[in-house]
Amino acid sequence: MSDKDIYAGLTQLGGATALPASPEEAVLERVPNPQAGTAYCVRFAAPEFTSLCPITGQPDFAHLVIDYVPGAWLVESKSLKLYLGSFRNHGAFHEDCTVSIGKRLVELLDPAWLRIGGYWYPRGGIPIDVFWQTAAPPEGVWIPVQGVPPYRGRG
Amino acid sequence: MSDKDIYAGLTQLGGATALPASPEEAVLERVPNPQAGTAYCVRFAAPEFTSLCPITGQPDFAHLVIDYVPGAWLVESKSLKLYLGSFRNHGAFHEDCTVSIGKRLVELLDPAWLRIGGYWYPRGGIPIDVFWQTAAPPEGVWIPVQGVPPYRGRG
Amino acid sequence: MSDKDIYAGLTQLGGATALPASPEEAVLERVPNPQAGTAYCVRFAAPEFTSLCPITGQPDFAHLVIDYVPGAWLVESKSLKLYLGSFRNHGAFHEDCTVSIGKRLVELLDPAWLRIGGYWYPRGGIPIDVFWQTAAPPEGVWIPVQGVPPYRGRG
Amino acid sequence: MSDKDIYAGLTQLGGATALPASPEEAVLERVPNPQAGTAYCVRFAAPEFTSLCPITGQPDFAHLVIDYVPGAWLVESKSLKLYLGSFRNHGAFHEDCTVSIGKRLVELLDPAWLRIGGYWYPRGGIPIDVFWQTAAPPEGVWIPVQGVPPYRGRG
Amino acid sequence: MSDKDIYAGLTQLGGATALPASPEEAVLERVPNPQAGTAYCVRFAAPEFTSLCPITGQPDFAHLVIDYVPGAWLVESKSLKLYLGSFRNHGAFHEDCTVSIGKRLVELLDPAWLRIGGYWYPRGGIPIDVFWQTAAPPEGVWIPVQGVPPYRGRG
Amino acid sequence: MSDKDIYAGLTQLGGATALPASPEEAVLERVPNPQAGTAYCVRFAAPEFTSLCPITGQPDFAHLVIDYVPGAWLVESKSLKLYLGSFRNHGAFHEDCTVSIGKRLVELLDPAWLRIGGYWYPRGGIPIDVFWQTAAPPEGVWIPVQGVPPYRGRG
Amino acid sequence: MSDKDIYAGLTQLGGATALPASPEEAVLERVPNPQAGTAYCVRFAAPEFTSLCPITGQPDFAHLVIDYVPGAWLVESKSLKLYLGSFRNHGAFHEDCTVSIGKRLVELLDPAWLRIGGYWYPRGGIPIDVFWQTAAPPEGVWIPVQGVPPYRGRG
Amino acid sequence: MSDKDIYAGLTQLGGATALPASPEEAVLERVPNPQAGTAYCVRFAAPEFTSLCPITGQPDFAHLVIDYVPGAWLVESKSLKLYLGSFRNHGAFHEDCTVSIGKRLVELLDPAWLRIGGYWYPRGGIPIDVFWQTAAPPEGVWIPVQGVPPYRGRG
Amino acid sequence: MSDKDIYAGLTQLGGATALPASPEEAVLERVPNPQAGTAYCVRFAAPEFTSLCPITGQPDFAHLVIDYVPGAWLVESKSLKLYLGSFRNHGAFHEDCTVSIGKRLVELLDPAWLRIGGYWYPRGGIPIDVFWQTAAPPEGVWIPVQGVPPYRGRG
Amino acid sequence: MSDKDIYAGLTQLGGATALPASPEEAVLERVPNPQAGTAYCVRFAAPEFTSLCPITGQPDFAHLVIDYVPGAWLVESKSLKLYLGSFRNHGAFHEDCTVSIGKRLVELLDPAWLRIGGYWYPRGGIPIDVFWQTAAPPEGVWIPVQGVPPYRGRG
Ligand SMILES: [Ca+2]
Ligand SMILES: [Ca+2]
Ligand SMILES: [Ca+2]
Ligand SMILES: [Ca+2]
Ligand SMILES: [Ca+2]
Ligand SMILES: [Ca+2]
Ligand SMILES: [Ca+2]
Ligand SMILES: [Ca+2]
Ligand SMILES: [Ca+2]
Ligand SMILES: [Ca+2]
Ligand SMILES: [Ca+2]
Ligand SMILES: [Ca+2]
Ligand SMILES: [Ca+2]
Ligand SMILES: [Ca+2]
Ligand SMILES: [Ca+2]
Ligand SMILES: [Ca+2]
Repeated sequence: MSDKDIYAGLTQLGGATALPASPEEAVLERVPNPQAGTAYCVRFAAPEFTSLCPITGQPDFAHLVIDYVPGAWLVESKSLKLYLGSFRNHGAFHEDCTVSIGKRLVELLDPAWLRIGGYWYPRGGIPIDVFWQTAAPPEGVWIPVQGVPPYRGRG
Repeated sequence: MSDKDIYAGLTQLGGATALPASPEEAVLERVPNPQAGTAYCVRFAAPEFTSLCPITGQPDFAHLVIDYVPGAWLVESKSLKLYLGSFRNHGAFHEDCTVSIGKRLVELLDPAWLRIGGYWYPRGGIPIDVFWQTAAPPEGVWIPVQGVPPYRGRG
Repeated sequence: MSDKDIYAGLTQLGGATALPASPEEAVLERVPNPQAGTAYCVRFAAPEFTSLCPITGQPDFAHLVIDYVPGAWLVESKSLKLYLGSFRNHGAFHEDCTVSIGKRLVELLDPAWLRIGGYWYPRGGIPIDVFWQTAAPPEGVWIPVQGVPPYRGRG
Repeated sequence: MSDKDIYAGLTQLGGATALPASPEEAVLERVPNPQAGTAYCVRFAAPEFTSLCPITGQPDFAHLVIDYVPGAWLVESKSLKLYLGSFRNHGAFHEDCTVSIGKRLVELLDPAWLRIGGYWYPRGGIPIDVFWQTAAPPEGVWIPVQGVPPYRGRG
Repeated sequence: MSDKDIYAGLTQLGGATALPASPEEAVLERVPNPQAGTAYCVRFAAPEFTSLCPITGQPDFAHLVIDYVPGAWLVESKSLKLYLGSFRNHGAFHEDCTVSIGKRLVELLDPAWLRIGGYWYPRGGIPIDVFWQTAAPPEGVWIPVQGVPPYRGRG
Repeated sequence: MSDKDIYAGLTQLGGATALPASPEEAVLERVPNPQAGTAYCVRFAAPEFTSLCPITGQPDFAHLVIDYVPGAWLVESKSLKLYLGSFRNHGAFHEDCTVSIGKRLVELLDPAWLRIGGYWYPRGGIPIDVFWQTAAPPEGVWIPVQGVPPYRGRG
Repeated sequence: MSDKDIYAGLTQLGGATALPASPEEAVLERVPNPQAGTAYCVRFAAPEFTSLCPITGQPDFAHLVIDYVPGAWLVESKSLKLYLGSFRNHGAFHEDCTVSIGKRLVELLDPAWLRIGGYWYPRGGIPIDVFWQTAAPPEGVWIPVQGVPPYRGRG
Repeated sequence: MSDKDIYAGLTQLGGATALPASPEEAVLERVPNPQAGTAYCVRFAAPEFTSLCPITGQPDFAHLVIDYVPGAWLVESKSLKLYLGSFRNHGAFHEDCTVSIGKRLVELLDPAWLRIGGYWYPRGGIPIDVFWQTAAPPEGVWIPVQGVPPYRGRG
Repeated sequence: MSDKDIYAGLTQLGGATALPASPEEAVLERVPNPQAGTAYCVRFAAPEFTSLCPITGQPDFAHLVIDYVPGAWLVESKSLKLYLGSFRNHGAFHEDCTVSIGKRLVELLDPAWLRIGGYWYPRGGIPIDVFWQTAAPPEGVWIPVQGVPPYRGRG
Repeated sequence: MSDKDIYAGLTQLGGATALPASPEEAVLERVPNPQAGTAYCVRFAAPEFTSLCPITGQPDFAHLVIDYVPGAWLVESKSLKLYLGSFRNHGAFHEDCTVSIGKRLVELLDPAWLRIGGYWYPRGGIPIDVFWQTAAPPEGVWIPVQGVPPYRGRG
């Protein structure tokens, strides 16, 4: 199977696709892993994540970083972008939201391993970071630290 | 139980709450962990901590970072902010204060694991940092380094 | 007059002095400028400033940097520390507070020139910085940029 | 007039206010400048700005920094936050949007001087920054550089 | 004229456009300046520039930063991207190439002012940077420093 | 065998060699490891990698870092440079391309161990990083972290 | 025993104490560990260390960082400051001096574990760093990296 | 006059010279400026400065940076080092000490221009920086900013 | 004249040229400025400069940065590299060496303007930087700051 | 044995020693380890290393960092400096040279453990780093990461 073939049948790539109205309506898509059988790690950094506070309706912002070791599937990156964008007008708590995004990807991809770090912008002077992984990293696979610098206020 | 329900019964969230006069008077609150049964880590960075020196009465300042792996409970973040704010006019030694804050959270939350780093501003040219955790981190849970840069004087 | 003589008559230096209860009660002191007649600049960096929000009573934090070109007087640094500490339980708006501290020092010192930068910790995701100087910097005096890094959220 | 009085008559401060549906519907409010007659500079850093691309409907992100030298009025910061938040579901081009925000503030505040820097996240690998000021900075007023680091890709 | 109208008549925006084979074949396009009559500055950072050495045929790389104060026209950003991409298989000397890109934009846009900085990757251990502007910056327009960090070898 | 002798028989070193038209045409060369029998690690950082998107034909850019523990062979560095340069006009997906480069080197060198990190420039605001190693690092060999800073957007 | 009580019987705290003439004359003091029975780590950063070269009599400078896991005792920080200051006019070799300071603290405190890093200023272009710990860090205790940046000369 | 000749007659260079007991006893030496008649700037960075507090006898530390435009003379750098070292056991106030060092060099060298920046380590949480120059920098001579980063406490 | 023609007649480019034994023997070459008549600035960063101390024969190291505004000529970069390399076994004082390199380039190129910054590695703990320019920068030409970070010792 | 005694019998310390003509002629010296029996680590950072390319004769540069756990001996630092300086006019390949320096030190010192990192300046845009250690680090000895930042080209 050539690299190009793996993109056949996708519904969103290349066209002008509207932002889904909610995470539930977003269609996350996957493509066959062209290096299936090789244990490697893929990282997405998404510094443009935003959702709404479910209590106050005010916007929240986060920098998300997702690492995974694919099995049979890769996430198609445009559908990932649309999925993350679908939180734009959706209410979500920090801890729950971060872990849920990770779990949705696990459901889609059935990866060998996955983790997600959610680095939220401060509210009330105290930012929350959330870190979740499916398990201890698989032995022998290279997974560098995410290295997002800590929040430090001013000065 | 929906995400919103977990915030029912809280006494401080949303209202205009005065700063508690002391750590003893502060009411730390907890909410059910919406991802209970999943091992993940939550981090709070609090660069706005201040207390008083119990010997001289002069202000002390610290940058605190707290990591925990929740069990059945999450700490409610506004009550955490008020609790930390309650040290404002309270005397506290660096080593003792840092460890005590960690222990109070353990008592409230009964977490799977917790650690606290206290990065104190220098006095006499030599800052003190204090690092405490309840135990070695649980296997298979992802807990990144805190990465607070070291004190380096001038130049 | 020897260097030591200029410190005669000070009321707070060396003793164990309680934090003044308000800026009004704080006693800012001055000493003769040992290099009077020479135009130079003195900078104080105060990363440990805190006051209360006059509307909500919640703590505010700021990193202050003060530059001045002394005339006949220098500010005595321990009294400056106590003065800044006296805002601890005092309500103050960001813009007003920063400029007022600068004006109080001008009143005390009658300097050739003075400026103050107030770099406040974010509230609601948007920090306020306040910059005031008495006039354009005097010609021929060296006054480096303050160089406090900008607030940048997370990531 | 006391500091507290200047906040009388505001419609949004303190209450739970919904995000305005568009910039046109947002109500920017102002308060009397408590230091009127003194030339100083106020800076807001807003790293949480987002709008939509008017061509594709996809989200855009920017880090905005606004400096102004107030005349008779200060912008009320919560209304500024809501105004900036009102672009969330609004289409806007980078150059036009940045300058327009600056002009709206000028209309509201009639400041002695104002500038806005819009540092947009990259699209197609090439970010756009937009810089506008009403005029050359007024003589004798201290206005530090904004110091937002340049975009540099990876590595 | 609405914002959307200014994009009518463009030939490359939105479609899948092949990379032009040379700078001569690239079609740089312009749109009416929606803020014409207002003096502001637009910056493009292009860290993905590459060309060929005209002597050896080996690839060269550069980080380009372009600032301009528009007159009646803005450069359309997708056509700019394609124009810069058209140097991919084209021979060009560092000094000449950088200045020529600036001049081509001047020809297209007739801006009030323009500058280009070319920060080339090292060859032989000594990188070349090239800086050109059409004239001294116009008075009263805000044009921040580009702030690209200097090359420093290793260590 | 002297150090110079190990370079005998190479076809590309020292001469003016044209960039190969594709990775398939590139001739990767190897030289005997002068420290064969000693377990050490060699790192190449290649911040000048570029290929084409196989779907759109647009240029992609990456910062590559390759670590390996040589067995009997070292890769000859000029041939490595030409090999990496041969992707210039070649279509390649991020995940596949990065792992494939690693595998080609493994085939050539039969190293004790090898890893490759591909840090790709963002497309659509979300960069992809790809990490692959042949196995867990060999015990007792020193292999420092690659330490490429994470992507962070603007601000 | 209250927090204040643990400071009873100290000879140097609070008074104006002269710098001891040599390390031998310095009186290192200890206080009971208020969190005895809890395994935590205390860090001191001392960027103001200076001694004399025993061969040439010229000043040497170092940045010291000390980590320890207390047992029954904490070091009293003012006495530590005076002890470190006592090297001011004392001859000491880099390797020997760093390790000796660590050993003296071990003798005083009988800690569960201790380490000291001495980061010396360059002489002859090549700085020496010295790292010593009493043993492998105790299991389950959190001891972050010291993170002192490496020396890198100029540029 | 050859370069080597300008070092004839110096008393301290090359030999093993003891640290002078006080600034008064230190012998600052000068050599003819080999580029006399050319206006250029020389910078010394001295991160290893230390003196004693004249009130408490405790050590103080500073990072000094000296810039000067030589006339007929250059300062001999070893004598400068010994002069700065002579403050080791000497009492000195921050403002006075910094300016006095500058004045002593002016007396020795009669330079076209000189400035000194003293960046002192914090005491009581608030460091003092002192900036002095003999006059506005001479026109047409290149004198870069000193660029010492500001003090920022912790975090 | 085409770009390629300007390289005709050069003696060192492309061939394998030995390092000249001294600055006097080095042949600095020039090529016609392909953008003659346009005022722009060219910067070379040379972090690999080394010479010998004329007193002790020990190696010295410097990071050099050269900016110039060409007139009729550009310096040919390979000859510049060889010229700088020719100091390798040559004795040179810091101040004299830096200014002399600048003057030699002025003699060769007769530029509109030139400056050189020499950032020397520390000896005895105190590095020397040397800054020279031919005159105040020409009006209207863009010449960014060199931005070499200051020396700061350790910590 | 006193600290001073361990320096008896050295041939190069204190005197004016010429740079050895080659690594073979350099005399590396050792002194008894004053802390023999204690497992600690010594680090040398040598940012001033330079050799010649054995193929082209052009200069190469590297930043070297050496860590070792001494046994009975310490390397005398001046002889180390002279040894490293002796590569100045000597041809050496990157991989071989780095490992060889490590092996020569092992031969001299018979240390408990040693490692060397060679961070070479880029040639052809791709720097080589070489990492070698004698074995896995000894258990229980503290050996921090070297932390040399990665090469990243420009921008
Ligand atoms: Ca202090
Ligand atoms: Ca320092
Ligand atoms: Ca005085
Ligand atoms: Ca906030
Ligand atoms: Ca950001
Ligand atoms: Ca992009
Ligand atoms: Ca790069
Ligand atoms: Ca528009
Ligand atoms: Ca270096
Ligand atoms: Ca070899
Ligand atoms: Ca206690
Ligand atoms: Ca040195
Ligand atoms: Ca360097
Ligand atoms: Ca802080
Ligand atoms: Ca190179
Ligand atoms: Ca780059």
